[in-house]
Amino acid sequence: MPVTSTLDTSAQKVTGEALQGAVSDLLDLSLVGKQMHWNVTGKNFRSLHLQLDEVVAFARTYADTCAERAVAIGVTPQGRAGDVASGSGLPEAKSGWVSDSEVVTYMISCYDALADRFRQRIEATEEPDPVTQDLFISITAELEKMRWMFQAENAV
Amino acid sequence: MPVTSTLDTSAQKVTGEALQGAVSDLLDLSLVGKQMHWNVTGKNFRSLHLQLDEVVAFARTYADTCAERAVAIGVTPQGRAGDVASGSGLPEAKSGWVSDSEVVTYMISCYDALADRFRQRIEATEEPDPVTQDLFISITAELEKMRWMFQAENAV
Amino acid sequence: MPVTSTLDTSAQKVTGEALQGAVSDLLDLSLVGKQMHWNVTGKNFRSLHLQLDEVVAFARTYADTCAERAVAIGVTPQGRAGDVASGSGLPEAKSGWVSDSEVVTYMISCYDALADRFRQRIEATEEPDPVTQDLFISITAELEKMRWMFQAENAV
Amino acid sequence: MPVTSTLDTSAQKVTGEALQGAVSDLLDLSLVGKQMHWNVTGKNFRSLHLQLDEVVAFARTYADTCAERAVAIGVTPQGRAGDVASGSGLPEAKSGWVSDSEVVTYMISCYDALADRFRQRIEATEEPDPVTQDLFISITAELEKMRWMFQAENAV
Amino acid sequence: MPVTSTLDTSAQKVTGEALQGAVSDLLDLSLVGKQMHWNVTGKNFRSLHLQLDEVVAFARTYADTCAERAVAIGVTPQGRAGDVASGSGLPEAKSGWVSDSEVVTYMISCYDALADRFRQRIEATEEPDPVTQDLFISITAELEKMRWMFQAENAV
Amino acid sequence: MPVTSTLDTSAQKVTGEALQGAVSDLLDLSLVGKQMHWNVTGKNFRSLHLQLDEVVAFARTYADTCAERAVAIGVTPQGRAGDVASGSGLPEAKSGWVSDSEVVTYMISCYDALADRFRQRIEATEEPDPVTQDLFISITAELEKMRWMFQAENAV
Amino acid sequence: MPVTSTLDTSAQKVTGEALQGAVSDLLDLSLVGKQMHWNVTGKNFRSLHLQLDEVVAFARTYADTCAERAVAIGVTPQGRAGDVASGSGLPEAKSGWVSDSEVVTYMISCYDALADRFRQRIEATEEPDPVTQDLFISITAELEKMRWMFQAENAV
Amino acid sequence: MPVTSTLDTSAQKVTGEALQGAVSDLLDLSLVGKQMHWNVTGKNFRSLHLQLDEVVAFARTYADTCAERAVAIGVTPQGRAGDVASGSGLPEAKSGWVSDSEVVTYMISCYDALADRFRQRIEATEEPDPVTQDLFISITAELEKMRWMFQAENAV
Amino acid sequence: MPVTSTLDTSAQKVTGEALQGAVSDLLDLSLVGKQMHWNVTGKNFRSLHLQLDEVVAFARTYADTCAERAVAIGVTPQGRAGDVASGSGLPEAKSGWVSDSEVVTYMISCYDALADRFRQRIEATEEPDPVTQDLFISITAELEKMRWMFQAENAV
Amino acid sequence: MPVTSTLDTSAQKVTGEALQGAVSDLLDLSLVGKQMHWNVTGKNFRSLHLQLDEVVAFARTYADTCAERAVAIGVTPQGRAGDVASGSGLPEAKSGWVSDSEVVTYMISCYDALADRFRQRIEATEEPDPVTQDLFISITAELEKMRWMFQAENAV
Amino acid sequence: MPVTSTLDTSAQKVTGEALQGAVSDLLDLSLVGKQMHWNVTGKNFRSLHLQLDEVVAFARTYADTCAERAVAIGVTPQGRAGDVASGSGLPEAKSGWVSDSEVVTYMISCYDALADRFRQRIEATEEPDPVTQDLFISITAELEKMRWMFQAENAV
Amino acid sequence: MPVTSTLDTSAQKVTGEALQGAVSDLLDLSLVGKQMHWNVTGKNFRSLHLQLDEVVAFARTYADTCAERAVAIGVTPQGRAGDVASGSGLPEAKSGWVSDSEVVTYMISCYDALADRFRQRIEATEEPDPVTQDLFISITAELEKMRWMFQAENAV
Repeated sequence: MPVTSTLDTSAQKVTGEALQGAVSDLLDLSLVGKQMHWNVTGKNFRSLHLQLDEVVAFARTYADTCAERAVAIGVTPQGRAGDVASGSGLPEAKSGWVSDSEVVTYMISCYDALADRFRQRIEATEEPDPVTQDLFISITAELEKMRWMFQAENAV
Repeated sequence: MPVTSTLDTSAQKVTGEALQGAVSDLLDLSLVGKQMHWNVTGKNFRSLHLQLDEVVAFARTYADTCAERAVAIGVTPQGRAGDVASGSGLPEAKSGWVSDSEVVTYMISCYDALADRFRQRIEATEEPDPVTQDLFISITAELEKMRWMFQAENAV
Repeated sequence: MPVTSTLDTSAQKVTGEALQGAVSDLLDLSLVGKQMHWNVTGKNFRSLHLQLDEVVAFARTYADTCAERAVAIGVTPQGRAGDVASGSGLPEAKSGWVSDSEVVTYMISCYDALADRFRQRIEATEEPDPVTQDLFISITAELEKMRWMFQAENAV
Repeated sequence: MPVTSTLDTSAQKVTGEALQGAVSDLLDLSLVGKQMHWNVTGKNFRSLHLQLDEVVAFARTYADTCAERAVAIGVTPQGRAGDVASGSGLPEAKSGWVSDSEVVTYMISCYDALADRFRQRIEATEEPDPVTQDLFISITAELEKMRWMFQAENAV
Repeated sequence: MPVTSTLDTSAQKVTGEALQGAVSDLLDLSLVGKQMHWNVTGKNFRSLHLQLDEVVAFARTYADTCAERAVAIGVTPQGRAGDVASGSGLPEAKSGWVSDSEVVTYMISCYDALADRFRQRIEATEEPDPVTQDLFISITAELEKMRWMFQAENAV
Repeated sequence: MPVTSTLDTSAQKVTGEALQGAVSDLLDLSLVGKQMHWNVTGKNFRSLHLQLDEVVAFARTYADTCAERAVAIGVTPQGRAGDVASGSGLPEAKSGWVSDSEVVTYMISCYDALADRFRQRIEATEEPDPVTQDLFISITAELEKMRWMFQAENAV
Repeated sequence: MPVTSTLDTSAQKVTGEALQGAVSDLLDLSLVGKQMHWNVTGKNFRSLHLQLDEVVAFARTYADTCAERAVAIGVTPQGRAGDVASGSGLPEAKSGWVSDSEVVTYMISCYDALADRFRQRIEATEEPDPVTQDLFISITAELEKMRWMFQAENAV
Repeated sequence: MPVTSTLDTSAQKVTGEALQGAVSDLLDLSLVGKQMHWNVTGKNFRSLHLQLDEVVAFARTYADTCAERAVAIGVTPQGRAGDVASGSGLPEAKSGWVSDSEVVTYMISCYDALADRFRQRIEATEEPDPVTQDLFISITAELEKMRWMFQAENAV
Repeated sequence: MPVTSTLDTSAQKVTGEALQGAVSDLLDLSLVGKQMHWNVTGKNFRSLHLQLDEVVAFARTYADTCAERAVAIGVTPQGRAGDVASGSGLPEAKSGWVSDSEVVTYMISCYDALADRFRQRIEATEEPDPVTQDLFISITAELEKMRWMFQAENAV
Repeated sequence: MPVTSTLDTSAQKVTGEALQGAVSDLLDLSLVGKQMHWNVTGKNFRSLHLQLDEVVAFARTYADTCAERAVAIGVTPQGRAGDVASGSGLPEAKSGWVSDSEVVTYMISCYDALADRFRQRIEATEEPDPVTQDLFISITAELEKMRWMFQAENAV
Repeated sequence: MPVTSTLDTSAQKVTGEALQGAVSDLLDLSLVGKQMHWNVTGKNFRSLHLQLDEVVAFARTYADTCAERAVAIGVTPQGRAGDVASGSGLPEAKSGWVSDSEVVTYMISCYDALADRFRQRIEATEEPDPVTQDLFISITAELEKMRWMFQAENAV
Repeated sequence: MPVTSTLDTSAQKVTGEALQGAVSDLLDLSLVGKQMHWNVTGKNFRSLHLQLDEVVAFARTYADTCAERAVAIGVTPQGRAGDVASGSGLPEAKSGWVSDSEVVTYMISCYDALADRFRQRIEATEEPDPVTQDLFISITAELEKMRWMFQAENAV
């Protein structure tokens, strides 16, 4: 292996899988975020168009951080289109035009899935690698903050 | 349609297809660029790791510009993982670790494909939409500059 | 003439008229953009107030570029209030308070007129001066992008 | 007194009381602005969330300026939570979640109170201290500008 | 009225008219400033070309501030090309090429008119609205500074 | 509830109370920090005046972060003057002028209280919400660093 | 006269004298500020050394503003070493090394003189030129703020 | 060849020669621009000294862009002193001191030559390589803008 | 003791020793990083020369953070040359010229030692001080990322 | 003496006198530079007005550097208005309005005096203090550069 | 030798030894500067804490410059902990807490040693390498400036 | 002569010739640096491509400084293509593609020539003009630093 691990084999395996899942989820979030950014319509077009670019910037940054954490423990991360399509846990995004309220509903469903999956990763990595766990905790804090914002927009 | 077109129907169709193809190609370039950025090994690791991030930044910026040009002429762009997987014209990227020379060879094959496909788009859009053609000309200038750089690195 | 032309007389005449028309349109866009920026009311006040300032910044920048292109080919551009009032092709802006949805409708009618007039200028200058044509192509790309954004806001 | 005054005793008293009132009002504005920033819900969540942070930044800056003006004339300003609670002239803010339209209505009532109180301070300090009056004039200009923006958002 | 006033009706009327006049004057200054910026010729071309862009930047900024002050007191400002043409107090600008010394002479005549009109506005608003008066005082300070600079250039 | 929680009810309750306590403490720190910033006297005036502004900046930033974390887990944070007065655990600040050494002694007593209260919050949230715990750990690191600095200034 | 005045002769005379006095005072403040900046000694060396550079920056900026205001009303300002020596109202600065407490005492005496002289200028220019008066009000606000800071440092 | 071409052989030849000519012209412009920048004398010294540095910055940037475009199509650019001397189409620059009006006259003759040569290159590359043509169009726009400025300075 | 601790005596002892060890290791990393930065030779000179400066910047920043954390818990950190020489756990650096591949091998051996020692510190401080543990977790994440990069460069 | 010298007594005396002379000259240059900046008239007003502010910025920076070099060798520098008036070697500046050509002539006479005096100081300090000599060499380089620029402007 | 010298052997030897001494001294200054930065206590804690970080930044920058100058003349510099411990000429720093006045006294003793040693290096390198001498002159200027500041703080 | 000299005739002659030589060498370095920047090939392409742009930036900056120093002493510098071709002391650069190792070898030969020629200029100007000598010393320091870097890359 070009890069050796500072973790033992089983810790490396659990942590590596959690990181690969995170990479898939976050790359997918960056793609569906852009999809919505382009296709949204309605009175709140501009506000959502801008907000979704912050989503994309967040997703790209942390996909990179998770992938680089994976390499750092000797696990090779996969982030090609096919890997994302098969590995992501996000609900499917609609094609074509999307109204502003549909966008908000869809994004909440994404953040529900992400919060759930990342909280599981926090638990799974607590023993094998507190360094990776700390990264997941930071990501979860940001995910739940964005989730609040879309929920708040959704409230009557 | 939420957004009407300033082009007639047939010009809109040709231009829209060219733009959708460009979006797929460039999103794929951003994904395989990151894949190589993470998995490259060898003496030139650091140099390629940095160079590939410039590739990714370029690809993300122009994927967005092409998609927004599509919406501007009333065509809804698709950029989800599945759309990228099926629509891209890039050669398949290897999974796992890649040596530095393999990266260079692979990137040249990507740029060969991209230069070819964008030159076809320049021709195809000359009549129907000089505005979109001008965007493709700018992208081609950058693509052929990056292609030179990887080729120069490959020369003995 | 203080500034001689690099174009022959007839090319200079056609190009000069196209540029003078562009200067009038864009200065007018900067004035009605501010008019709306100040007088808009309604739930989307803040979003439109900010968006209209981007319209104004764009219009001012390119009015200047077109005027300086005119001088560069030896044609003296006119941009006084009377020149704008008589030369602009924009629909008349309402005086006094304007509701947010009225603003969106009005801006779409402006961008429809502008896209149409600039596409004619692209055609008119193709033969006599490709340098000026290239400027009109860039402006049209921006105009059609802004047009999409107001249309998207207008969609139900 | 550690800091002597450049005003005579009665001018110092009138000016000092006006400044202390301003400090209480503005610190309170900064607190209720954040309260709304956190608890707002509804379609305009994001727009108000951002706008309220500008309110808070303004309030903090000028609370500081007024307090430092008080010290400069030898009057010790009080800005603890109890001082704010007892000295502020703002209407009481609702606890818990607040809908976007409730936020706009509440903020208008705050700005009505502030504009009224600051115009009184402009009058009160004209004779005793034109330097402090000038500060109140600047603050009033900003307050009335923000008041317009919330009113415009409230218009049908 | 979407925006209520913090001034009584007569104060609002006087102040509103002064502000509308200022908006017309300053928008016109921004237009004739650009007209001169483009058409000036002669040895001092470059110096005046740059100086006139500072004039334009100043005029645009304060036209906006005056218009937003008008809205803040419930008066709707008008800034369309026709409003500027009819409301401005500036002397008429020559069309076509202008020599550098003609530009200086013309700009001095503009600043003479502006200084006179703004000093009248300072007086007119002293009673009805010291907040607006303060804005006019700031503008006058800048206008008279620019007026000196063109006069100094004109001195033998 | 406009915002649902990713925590179960009891975890949400414990975490929400800890966050509300933190918001009160930190808003109060921002208010007493400014109170001291204005009223401090003595040879170390300037040094403390500047240092206290860093205290205030820290307190404002993290009060906001804690409040936004509360909303993110579906708990509405309260930060009005009365909430701060009743909820804060800081010792009471003296009114009026304060000598530099009194300021140092007072700030140390604040940081003693804060370090104690935040260490309890770290413990209380370990089980129910590691994401919130991580935030409290970061805040405690900063609080104890500032505590050292005031203690070091206090040493003979 | 190369620059004509927008004031009548007697208003110009009163205002011009006030401005010339201000120029002398402020240039002198910039010189004695540097003198102290270089020669201060004692435990508070570093704090005063930095604080005095802020004094100098302030003095230089406003000496320039006052002088340019003078020219703007057609009065030629004098700022040569001899003009400063004869026109300044500041107490004489000691030559050679100065202890930190001597610096504080000396600076307070400077600010006492300056506050007194500028308050007289505010009164003197109220009638003849409100534009100049507004400038003196701004300067006085800053002077009295700096005066407080040196007084606060002087308090036991 | 280390770098292959995306153009066929004859297109590559025509485009490569045009680019090599542009590199020679622009490097020469950067050299004679500096020559004038150093040796200019007369009342307009400072204005021309600054203006010529903008000429040089432009020339250096686009010489680089043209050379890199050449490499991108597999043509090796030459930019050594001898290459510039033999390949440039600029009129010869005088050695030694040059008066300001001589500089202006000389620069106009340079820009006349450049505008002519670049317009020929625009035509020559239209068929073989629209990407390179687009670059020449951008350069020509800038060249003709600078040409106007020197001509305007030359007008009586 | 000038600075009291928020930890009990035994927690303070364990944590203090871990922090002192970290300070020694990181200061040593900053010194050997510079040693290699100056003495490296070979084809990869430039790439390693730059990469090593990032190592040094990281090491200096976190040595400071660890030392300030030590003082914050009442433990006085030692960072003199002798303390570093005796306390560091890094392998000895070769004196004189070092080839690029020797540098890579040596840096990997440093990072192996550091990763091991910091993982032990993470465990040791979990109970006594989660605040310090969190700092070690952050440092380990960075160390293992840099370790990957040198390992990747070492792979054939 | 509060500050001891690293030079022996006679070296300190020679160097100290040279530095005191430099401080006087440079402070005077900053004062007459501003005097001209305000009072210049004529076609080159704007160019000289800007150029003189660069003179002033240079003079202020190096007056400070020379004075701080004096203190560093234990010599207390004097920079009050009277010190400048008596110690400067610059020719007397005219009071009141000055035409642009008079300004140029006057500034050349200042730079002639300064170049002469600083070249003497370079010689005088070569033996006693090469550190101070090096500072004078840097100042002379800048002075002679500015001298050229005014001379070039003066050439027919 | 990987790097040849532009100096003859004996000049290289003398210069190399002077540079190696400088590297040791300056690295040691950076280490003891941090040691004091962390352990200082007393009323002037904050002021010294900040001032010492400027010392450290200076020492790190010039240690690097001296080391790179050594390599540039073909001499390999040594900067490991042991090299610093054995090669530095600074007085020994006390371990543990240090009062503010002890810090000042200690730093003066460091600067006395440094000024002495660098003045010797200026002399030693005058003949063999004026390029290195010039570097030592610049360093000495800064060292003596900092020495003044600590001495001034020490004066009663 | 438009610019008189502060040196006597013979000093001016010696110094002027040294400066003209330096201008030729440095302009040539900027041209061959770009030539290599464009034509380099091989594994180290990217690293050398970036490094050569730093060479060019350095060469352009100091060519300008030397030329402006020449004018400052009344000597007119020549920097046209022919002047560079005849006056430069650099070895001839190969035309066409260059491998990375050829580039390194060629650049070392350039720096050998430059170091030699500049050290001669340092000697030649010591007597006639220490101001110019100081400039040559600074340039030599940078040249020898860059020479080391290319030599280090060349070492096995």
